[in-house]
Amino acid sequence: MIWAQHTIQLTPRPRGFHLVTGEVLRGIPELKQVKTGMLQVFIQHTSASLTINENASPEVLEDFETCFNALAPENAPGILHTLEGPDDMPAHIKASLLGASLMLPVCDGALALGTWQGIFLCEHRNRGGGRKLVLTLWGEAK
Amino acid sequence: MIWAQHTIQLTPRPRGFHLVTGEVLRGIPELKQVKTGMLQVFIQHTSASLTINENASPEVLEDFETCFNALAPENAPGILHTLEGPDDMPAHIKASLLGASLMLPVCDGALALGTWQGIFLCEHRNRGGGRKLVLTLWGEAK
Amino acid sequence: MIWAQHTIQLTPRPRGFHLVTGEVLRGIPELKQVKTGMLQVFIQHTSASLTINENASPEVLEDFETCFNALAPENAPGILHTLEGPDDMPAHIKASLLGASLMLPVCDGALALGTWQGIFLCEHRNRGGGRKLVLTLWGEAK
Repeated sequence: MIWAQHTIQLTPRPRGFHLVTGEVLRGIPELKQVKTGMLQVFIQHTSASLTINENASPEVLEDFETCFNALAPENAPGILHTLEGPDDMPAHIKASLLGASLMLPVCDGALALGTWQGIFLCEHRNRGGGRKLVLTLWGEAK
Repeated sequence: MIWAQHTIQLTPRPRGFHLVTGEVLRGIPELKQVKTGMLQVFIQHTSASLTINENASPEVLEDFETCFNALAPENAPGILHTLEGPDDMPAHIKASLLGASLMLPVCDGALALGTWQGIFLCEHRNRGGGRKLVLTLWGEAK
Repeated sequence: MIWAQHTIQLTPRPRGFHLVTGEVLRGIPELKQVKTGMLQVFIQHTSASLTINENASPEVLEDFETCFNALAPENAPGILHTLEGPDDMPAHIKASLLGASLMLPVCDGALALGTWQGIFLCEHRNRGGGRKLVLTLWGEAK
């Protein structure tokens, strides 16, 4: 049984959706030693989130920003928590819609993702800074 | 390797979003014995859910209720499943948008949450009662 | 400690929400050998997803389709990624709203689901084909 856990800080990115699969994989080199297992990626923030989606078209990343802005608009009627700016409360809603963690199956030393799947960092704040991820890996050794 | 699993029943709460981090932690005392591991919190219901979000401002809890009522409104056109009241079908939609479980990394006997992260019980029914959670913990012993 | 991992392909289904609990369970017979553990169900696609919701009323399945079409409508203004048809980009959004994986607690050789909980395949494409799931099980042997 292998356990490994590392906290990494992502390069700061602008508001929007960004592919970070490579950055995550570089943070957990023990992955290669696992035959069957699981990798959790957990974001320690409440106004950024993680999701798995298409890794090919940059248009998809842009459309995610458009669609999530429609789902959780700024300056919506009745919103109370506006002290930290109009992007703050929508960021919390988007973060919960998408979730704070991903669970990725590991098979023969690699993630068992589908061909078109990549890891998105979903940055919901205008200036979010470098986001911290806790990477936890466990499984059977090869 | 440590495994622990307990089913707890939360205090009943009114419709809305509620911080329950303390209640969850009290249900799984074995957490202190785990060096590196994982805690799953699973809700055994389809009209209440769990999420991680800001643990500081009560306004955020209220804004979650406002925003999720806008995303899944009562008496929406075309809805068929109305037998159990107008709050029932929106509750199912909200439950799937937010999800039935949380995966929380464990580090040195404590949850590796960010400073502002807390566990929300999301009660989507007008009278939901005491919700049941299955807490499952696994990891390396300290 | 038991680890088991299988990839299964679901029977193709039309666009909409479908109960697949039985099909998933048949894919992981080792479940019966686990005393305390966890089953992950991971979908290797970006335009179909998984959720847990009510296993009783067929109306709920229809209402999910109605409500998610309202949340991520076809031909929304500003959408760029339209090459693969009007159902494609909304499918990606729905997939991320619902998520690519489920984590199901295992207790005494069975899933510790609530009475009304079942596993939904959420097919967001008009013609999605047979979707591939990676089933990963780990836990203490009985």
